[in-house]
Amino acid sequence: MSNGRKKLLIIGGVACGPKAAARARRLDPSAEITIIERGPLLSYAGCGLPYYIGGSIPELDGLRKTQYGVIRDEEFFNSVKDITTRTRTLAETIDRKQKTVRVRNLETNVTEDISYDKLVLAVGASPVRPPVEGLNLDRVFSVHVPEDARKMRELIESGEVDKAVFIGGGRIALEVAESLFAHAVDTTIIEIEGSILPEVLDPEIAATVAGALRAEGVAIFISEKVLRIEGNEDGRACKVVTETREIPTDIVVVATGVRPNVQLARETGLAIGETGAIAVNERLQTSDPDIYAGGDCVECTSLVTAKKMYAPLGSTANRHGRVIGDNVAGGDATFPGIVGTCVMKTMGVNVSSTGITERQARDLGYSPLTCIVPSMDRAHYYPGGKPILIKLVADAKDGRLLGGQVVGPGDVTKRIDVLATALTSRANIDDVANLDLGYAPPYSSALDTVAHAANLLKNKRDGIVRSVTPMELRKRMGRDEDFVVLDVREASELEKSKLDDKRVCAMPLSRLRSSAEEIPKDKELICLCQLGSRSYEACRTLEGMGFDDVKFLEGGLRFWLELGEWNG
Amino acid sequence: MSNGRKKLLIIGGVACGPKAAARARRLDPSAEITIIERGPLLSYAGCGLPYYIGGSIPELDGLRKTQYGVIRDEEFFNSVKDITTRTRTLAETIDRKQKTVRVRNLETNVTEDISYDKLVLAVGASPVRPPVEGLNLDRVFSVHVPEDARKMRELIESGEVDKAVFIGGGRIALEVAESLFAHAVDTTIIEIEGSILPEVLDPEIAATVAGALRAEGVAIFISEKVLRIEGNEDGRACKVVTETREIPTDIVVVATGVRPNVQLARETGLAIGETGAIAVNERLQTSDPDIYAGGDCVECTSLVTAKKMYAPLGSTANRHGRVIGDNVAGGDATFPGIVGTCVMKTMGVNVSSTGITERQARDLGYSPLTCIVPSMDRAHYYPGGKPILIKLVADAKDGRLLGGQVVGPGDVTKRIDVLATALTSRANIDDVANLDLGYAPPYSSALDTVAHAANLLKNKRDGIVRSVTPMELRKRMGRDEDFVVLDVREASELEKSKLDDKRVCAMPLSRLRSSAEEIPKDKELICLCQLGSRSYEACRTLEGMGFDDVKFLEGGLRFWLELGEWNG
Repeated sequence: MSNGRKKLLIIGGVACGPKAAARARRLDPSAEITIIERGPLLSYAGCGLPYYIGGSIPELDGLRKTQYGVIRDEEFFNSVKDITTRTRTLAETIDRKQKTVRVRNLETNVTEDISYDKLVLAVGASPVRPPVEGLNLDRVFSVHVPEDARKMRELIESGEVDKAVFIGGGRIALEVAESLFAHAVDTTIIEIEGSILPEVLDPEIAATVAGALRAEGVAIFISEKVLRIEGNEDGRACKVVTETREIPTDIVVVATGVRPNVQLARETGLAIGETGAIAVNERLQTSDPDIYAGGDCVECTSLVTAKKMYAPLGSTANRHGRVIGDNVAGGDATFPGIVGTCVMKTMGVNVSSTGITERQARDLGYSPLTCIVPSMDRAHYYPGGKPILIKLVADAKDGRLLGGQVVGPGDVTKRIDVLATALTSRANIDDVANLDLGYAPPYSSALDTVAHAANLLKNKRDGIVRSVTPMELRKRMGRDEDFVVLDVREASELEKSKLDDKRVCAMPLSRLRSSAEEIPKDKELICLCQLGSRSYEACRTLEGMGFDDVKFLEGGLRFWLELGEWNG
Repeated sequence: MSNGRKKLLIIGGVACGPKAAARARRLDPSAEITIIERGPLLSYAGCGLPYYIGGSIPELDGLRKTQYGVIRDEEFFNSVKDITTRTRTLAETIDRKQKTVRVRNLETNVTEDISYDKLVLAVGASPVRPPVEGLNLDRVFSVHVPEDARKMRELIESGEVDKAVFIGGGRIALEVAESLFAHAVDTTIIEIEGSILPEVLDPEIAATVAGALRAEGVAIFISEKVLRIEGNEDGRACKVVTETREIPTDIVVVATGVRPNVQLARETGLAIGETGAIAVNERLQTSDPDIYAGGDCVECTSLVTAKKMYAPLGSTANRHGRVIGDNVAGGDATFPGIVGTCVMKTMGVNVSSTGITERQARDLGYSPLTCIVPSMDRAHYYPGGKPILIKLVADAKDGRLLGGQVVGPGDVTKRIDVLATALTSRANIDDVANLDLGYAPPYSSALDTVAHAANLLKNKRDGIVRSVTPMELRKRMGRDEDFVVLDVREASELEKSKLDDKRVCAMPLSRLRSSAEEIPKDKELICLCQLGSRSYEACRTLEGMGFDDVKFLEGGLRFWLELGEWNG
């Protein structure tokens, strides 16, 4: 610090790095701030790449423009922010004693040592390369950097892509699939796990999303392992071979998740966490207090489970950047953690999740209490409403909310953001039921579906009602067990759809009280309606009349039908 | 209780009453449950009336149908819920010793005593009749019961309504105004307070909403008192006379709020609260433990201020009903209170508010810290984004969030529901800034505007930046004070709109560092940009270069322009 100016060196120029640099500059006008970026571009919105591929974002430069239209390039960082940037520059080694980083210019191959007072690792993540032969063939893509997207769009616009196969059924795959769909590309998704989006959705919720995609013509194969990609004589991918089938294709997209870039940190001797990402404290310091890390290369604390988790997201990277910027400029900011919120759009379906899933809750030793509620996203009598499906997961022990999943064509992100906010304050289901959410007919029911779902959880917890899931009912129907399904919908509804099983008997809710003598007293009764609310009421009515083995079908016939052939 | 069955008597059959009855029935199958309703209809969605008037809800019956299409009439309550209902029946007196209610059949005029074990008052509210002459003229409406809406729609569809005047500029007025607008009715709104929606929006936010309505052609006069309505020779309203003008009209809508119906409770000797509504405890019991009350006739506890407030809303009535149903059936449920959330739609603008406004905060003795942030409702590069404007109010003492207002054509209800949820957990601005909200480009920026606004509040609290509001700047410009406004937008933006004042000088952010010598050192500098973020950055840059009296224009030029002529 010969000139008395603090030297801040930031490795990584995409999301967390530039944010940290800009924040530090705003707080410390005299610091020497340098960003090193291995790629050619700075400060681009990686989350926008799927939409560039599909063309809804016309220019790739749109992803690195400010909201007032100026491109965030080297000149921008220099003139506007007084931040030095070096693109196509790789950080090779860190000398923590000397506090220097050896960097290599990837154009000239010249190396150089840059000294620092505070160092920031914002080195991101890299696509996982699954154990599949043929990943190096032409026309095999991952969607990680702008160049990937540019090549893909070019190829698609060339008209040479009629068919696409996705290896992996996670968020990126589904976002890019939507883009290809917009280009009328025949799309196949292959997921090795038992359901798509396995990290954020429970299998039955994922099944409804998969059902919606299949209805649009997308082929989805789950629990299926890809063995190899085969190429033609030109070295271009032309076929994907799985354990059970061969799928001809013009393009292969590998989207099997990302892995944190930890090699540099590991070689430098910094602590790596149990998740495999760089370990940091609340101030986002690594095990070396002069080295900070944030974004896709670090692990976060789950505010739900208090455990470490790896959930790389642009929003988290952005918030990390601000905290690091504060701290390297001499402040004392903390990043408490995340609840693990994920939202995405795919082919007319909005998909969202926060906290942990039922499966994750079980794996972590909780006794999860869950419910599934289908509804419209506004007052049922207000025109233009669209369906949504909500699943809540709570701890049966103390009623604390653990997570939520909301999917459907309707407004799901409002509900997931409410649940994410409630999770942050460790709300229980009574708190959620009592929330004073905005109500007017164009936006919600008088009791929003989030609160309604919380009330159903309370009823289940308090033993006021018992339910069966469609998955349980399907299994039991298959086993030829003896019970009666009372379809309590009105006659006009039965014409549209009904369950075809000899154990199903029509008994409209309006006739239930007057026709109780028609209902067998000695059999288990499972009430069924369209959305689950009338059948819940039927349960209470029947119990009031002395029937003692009564349940309702959770999620109603709508959820049953959305599950398609799936039976868990 | 000769037959051992508990007698539950509920006075009021619209929202809270039927909900309480239905919940009690589900919990207590043997209770004798009776609902008394003075009007002809049961269990209708009063909040839907404005949309029926406009025709987006085709049939009035749609407002009293279940989501599966069955009308909630006497027969429905009897056969489905085993609840006795008596419409057109007025509760006249309560004998608390004998535990009976004297009711009068309004058709036959016959009176009768009905005994109860537990009594529920869900008697609602009535429209306030302002001190205006001519309220009894023909074609003077309030919009409170279905019959009001039916008559209004009939009249509008007759083609005899070209002009309408609204007395009052609150929520109902604006919702109905939207409906008339859909019928090309020339609309005037007269509000006695200094801004529309005075209870839920601060004046400058209300001014932007009023500006949007005026742009659609609605005439809005604020701070103006209506003296009388004049009629023609047929006794029909034809003119509204205010202190300053006469407005010819074909119809007058009186929408000056509602007042709780407390006469029966007062005559019965039940405690009336400081707000003028019925006082209840957390279990929603009145001062007589056998008499419960809920919905529009009671006051609520504010979870923000811990004071009582009167905020009648269908959503609250619904939640009250459930709690009362639990308790009259022998349970022990509580209603903790509300934060005061309000949302509404009017002519392409979504309007929302939660907690308290800046003005209310001042009146209550807080030192409010506020900020205003305009933004798009999704990533700025993602197509189809719409503008929203957010104002946050926090307590300067401890940073606790006190309220929020979000308005605009974009997705405001998501943000208000997040703020409402945060208020419930007594979040402070650091908590809001750290929220892990769902991020994908179609739904939000990487840092959602709610978190961005919280960060701006933090910057203001920590003294990192100072701002002036457009209202302050307009006043100071008018006073001919000496200062410099630096417009830091790019040249291309200046062509579209700029401030016309000799103190304004163009200095694009990209030139700020290199052209600092052009900027006077001895004058107060006010930086200005489109949305407020570049000007904030410009402040930090200038301070770093040694300028010490630097502020930015909060809300940017967009907010300035949305305010129209308004200057607080």
